[in-house]
Amino acid sequence: MTDNIYPVFDRIYDRKVKQEILRQSAKVIWFTGLSGSGKTTLASNLEKELFFRRFFCQVLDGDNIRVGINNNLGFSAVDRLENIRRIAEVSKLLINTGMITICSFISPTDEIRELAKSIIGEDDFIEIFLNPPLEVCEDRDPKGLYKKARAGIIKDFTGISSPFEAPKHPDLEIDTSVTPIKDSVDQIFNIIIDRITL
Amino acid sequence: MTDNIYPVFDRIYDRKVKQEILRQSAKVIWFTGLSGSGKTTLASNLEKELFFRRFFCQVLDGDNIRVGINNNLGFSAVDRLENIRRIAEVSKLLINTGMITICSFISPTDEIRELAKSIIGEDDFIEIFLNPPLEVCEDRDPKGLYKKARAGIIKDFTGISSPFEAPKHPDLEIDTSVTPIKDSVDQIFNIIIDRITL
Repeated sequence: MTDNIYPVFDRIYDRKVKQEILRQSAKVIWFTGLSGSGKTTLASNLEKELFFRRFFCQVLDGDNIRVGINNNLGFSAVDRLENIRRIAEVSKLLINTGMITICSFISPTDEIRELAKSIIGEDDFIEIFLNPPLEVCEDRDPKGLYKKARAGIIKDFTGISSPFEAPKHPDLEIDTSVTPIKDSVDQIFNIIIDRITL
Repeated sequence: MTDNIYPVFDRIYDRKVKQEILRQSAKVIWFTGLSGSGKTTLASNLEKELFFRRFFCQVLDGDNIRVGINNNLGFSAVDRLENIRRIAEVSKLLINTGMITICSFISPTDEIRELAKSIIGEDDFIEIFLNPPLEVCEDRDPKGLYKKARAGIIKDFTGISSPFEAPKHPDLEIDTSVTPIKDSVDQIFNIIIDRITL
């Protein structure tokens, strides 16, 4: 289907120029972890910190993506892969505009995270694994989903009835049950600062 | 499928803040017209002009989108609608990051353009119709597609074997067979300047 198609990146302002205008190096900061592990909280706190320090960024979240570009996808295995594929492609578009992109998705399996990394490109992919104990996530239960999963109302719920494969080599791992939000943001900032600075 | 999902826009830096940082009002500038009508040329020239004037923008093009987010779509009627739906959703994400977004797609029918407009929002959608005579487009034939369409190698080719419905109320219409590139860019800039200025 791509026979009649050729990329136009050379004809339009490229990432390098846009990064220079924004004075930053665009990366994808990818949060992975269970529901309730703190992904959304840290994503929005990291975004605030980055704006405060004059970096320009955008959060992509299961919630804002699922109501938009992915509103025609369900939660089957095939749809979950397509969900991540589209998120990764959108992230890639965003870093091509020079934008630091913060992704906050459970992304429970190696296959899913590898797919994202392969689309985005290894150099541009920074993986942060939020790893509090399941009991803490379940106790937080910010959207009441664990309760529904335990009651059998939600099938295939990650951590309860569907596995979460811990990333083998994340760039950073944080147990958010013991690390306060501010300290977590500082840790993340410390490992990304060199990579997002032009 | 959205039962367990609620938008997070309120919890993250919103469009208003990002527009203030970029000092611009984000809009989608949507080029429609036949293959060879000058969409890509004007999109990239408009982008250069906007950058020169310190506006920040991104071009989305049938070519760069088809090799990325839409690389699993063909050219059936259903896929064409899904193609535009995703493009419109990506455009909406981009304007929510404060970015002026220039879309360059044939988008041949009222249904397709209405779908895009309804997703993006009427206030944020500026429609530019490039309207040189078909003969001129066919003569330019930048990718050799008209030749293939006439030879029957490409089926359902807009303008040859598939209809193009002229937009009824575009914000601007340009006959690029008589209007030079620089004048076209000036015309476009003149009708958008008030709407992209904060």
